[in-house]
Amino acid sequence: MREVAVIGIGQSVFGKLPQRNVVELGRESVWTALKDANMSPKDVQFAYVSRLYDAMVTGQTILKEVGIREMEIVNVENACAGGSTALLGVWRNIALGVYDIGIAIGVESMTTSPIASKLIPPAKEDLEGQLGMTMPALFALMARRHMEEYGTTVEQFARVSVKNHHHGCLNPFSQYQKEFTVEDILSSRMICDPITLLQCCPNTDGAAAVIMCPMDIARRYTSKPIKVAACVLKSGNYAYLQDDITFCPTDYKAAMEAYEMAGLGPDDLDVVELHDAFAPEEIFRYEELGLCNRGEGAQLLNSGATELGGRIPVNPSGGLLSMGHPLSASGVRVVVEIARQLRGEAEARQVANAKTGLAHMMGGAVAGLDVGAVGIQILTA
Amino acid sequence: MREVAVIGIGQSVFGKLPQRNVVELGRESVWTALKDANMSPKDVQFAYVSRLYDAMVTGQTILKEVGIREMEIVNVENACAGGSTALLGVWRNIALGVYDIGIAIGVESMTTSPIASKLIPPAKEDLEGQLGMTMPALFALMARRHMEEYGTTVEQFARVSVKNHHHGCLNPFSQYQKEFTVEDILSSRMICDPITLLQCCPNTDGAAAVIMCPMDIARRYTSKPIKVAACVLKSGNYAYLQDDITFCPTDYKAAMEAYEMAGLGPDDLDVVELHDAFAPEEIFRYEELGLCNRGEGAQLLNSGATELGGRIPVNPSGGLLSMGHPLSASGVRVVVEIARQLRGEAEARQVANAKTGLAHMMGGAVAGLDVGAVGIQILTA
Repeated sequence: MREVAVIGIGQSVFGKLPQRNVVELGRESVWTALKDANMSPKDVQFAYVSRLYDAMVTGQTILKEVGIREMEIVNVENACAGGSTALLGVWRNIALGVYDIGIAIGVESMTTSPIASKLIPPAKEDLEGQLGMTMPALFALMARRHMEEYGTTVEQFARVSVKNHHHGCLNPFSQYQKEFTVEDILSSRMICDPITLLQCCPNTDGAAAVIMCPMDIARRYTSKPIKVAACVLKSGNYAYLQDDITFCPTDYKAAMEAYEMAGLGPDDLDVVELHDAFAPEEIFRYEELGLCNRGEGAQLLNSGATELGGRIPVNPSGGLLSMGHPLSASGVRVVVEIARQLRGEAEARQVANAKTGLAHMMGGAVAGLDVGAVGIQILTA
Repeated sequence: MREVAVIGIGQSVFGKLPQRNVVELGRESVWTALKDANMSPKDVQFAYVSRLYDAMVTGQTILKEVGIREMEIVNVENACAGGSTALLGVWRNIALGVYDIGIAIGVESMTTSPIASKLIPPAKEDLEGQLGMTMPALFALMARRHMEEYGTTVEQFARVSVKNHHHGCLNPFSQYQKEFTVEDILSSRMICDPITLLQCCPNTDGAAAVIMCPMDIARRYTSKPIKVAACVLKSGNYAYLQDDITFCPTDYKAAMEAYEMAGLGPDDLDVVELHDAFAPEEIFRYEELGLCNRGEGAQLLNSGATELGGRIPVNPSGGLLSMGHPLSASGVRVVVEIARQLRGEAEARQVANAKTGLAHMMGGAVAGLDVGAVGIQILTA
């Protein structure tokens, strides 16, 4: 396997953008990434593109506008881990020597989609979903159980949202640009007890793109290549009865695989971007990714370790809660953010001396209690 | 690159099946393929799954029911070439040694989809589509031009449909099971001159699955492994102005790449399954795949060469016109059919002594005059 580098990163603005369609958003991310890699469209040899809603040959539709044509273009989907799936396709084809230069794109226009206009509807085939186990309900159950098992409090969940909204205020790409207090979070409209509105990520339109190539030619394109030390995609077990709904075993296993592939452990990480679609989730993910022991996620948050300036800042971008969550784009966007951090280009939200980072995304709860897919990348400067 | 074999094939019934959802259709194809490969679900190491409409983690939703869990599952989409894209993912990962056993699945429930209930609507981003360049209009323009350039007649287009419906009567999986005359075809309702209703493929629900492994272990699972001699996926150029709309250069280039990869030429083929969504198309594809010279497609048809019993039977299954076209399933289904032929298991529609076959699927016209993606596999017994 060849060593692979991220050599170009790009993204569109994130927000509610009903006047901009998928092609415009995607194209903006691609042009930014090409410019970042000092590269012409003609240099790109293949593409993996992710979009969930109203998708048909989205990649081709975006890339023809840029002049990237007549090649292998694969459109992928894996719910919120769709972007991670596009990254896997590009990374592996380069690692195995099939191609030298590829682009991974994630894009979503939730606002203009006729079918994404409500919260993700449960599929007709999803019995639990049809019975009411929607995403907020699922995360509310997990949150309640974490409170019961470990004494976690609603204030601690709210503090995740306070932290990430604070980070988002330092990020010009963030959809929200507003500080909130614990009281603001808890007094916002109840969605599904204990989850209030400001503990939910917003609906977002946006796109992100990442260009990769073998490390040994990366310096032709950039002075700051970022090594992809691990790239993992794992689908769930879907056990209807789980021992502990506060801990996703698939997420844990994916993280362990990624650490093994990178030859690194959680203590080596300087910065993490992870899936915080609902505020309580961030605490579960700390535990699954091994940033702390099981049951100690709230303590890790309380300690300040995961804030900017702390030992291991989590979601310095603002995360899904503040930055926004254009579903298929988010898996690519977390790699864009980690690469920015490792290059030292994250400006007001820069994590000092960040050399190693982890990008995480997950999605597609099928049977309610497990996950459709988890994508994890570990990057090093 | 390791040599890869098809060791298991399966499909659901094809037809209008409003009482059966995507999970049931997909599961039927997977169980059939597993049984065909004398294999347990536990033997499968990864999956690529294609579905166009209402897609979210479709692969996971189908495979959890079968007990194929906790692995890499990638959902792909490439319009009618989605199934070909799933096959590419499985083939390449095995060829390059990432995994040993994988399954490619294509599935579509057009009948139960709220958004597939009409003919594929043009995307909002597709200017030509919005201006009326729908699929039947596009193929009608090509057909008229072929008539003008080469003297092809409407009766010849109708004869494609007569041939494929005749083949379909010999195939228990076919949606139609009815013979038609040239007069029947031409007197059916006009859709877009010169294309009448019986020159259009129907909307279809169905699924197909293919299991592959390295050739050197294939005989553990089957006495009749079928070698994948070539596997190509190519997206179009999308030139707004083409020299000749009767000839798709991307389709031609994909075919030439496949022949080169296999070390074979069109004269070596014993049987072909190709994209005949509209009857005139089959004549264009003869020319692009090199089964005859450019402009001589109608003569090839007239000669009887492409009928069962002829020199190079095309669409012995009945093709999309008779068998039906569940979009993402069709790219997998053509490989199922070619594998059946090469094993000598095609019963009433068996092509005598078939040793080499080509499976073709294409789809997703983005700018009207070129194609979103072409997928081609060459298989040998």
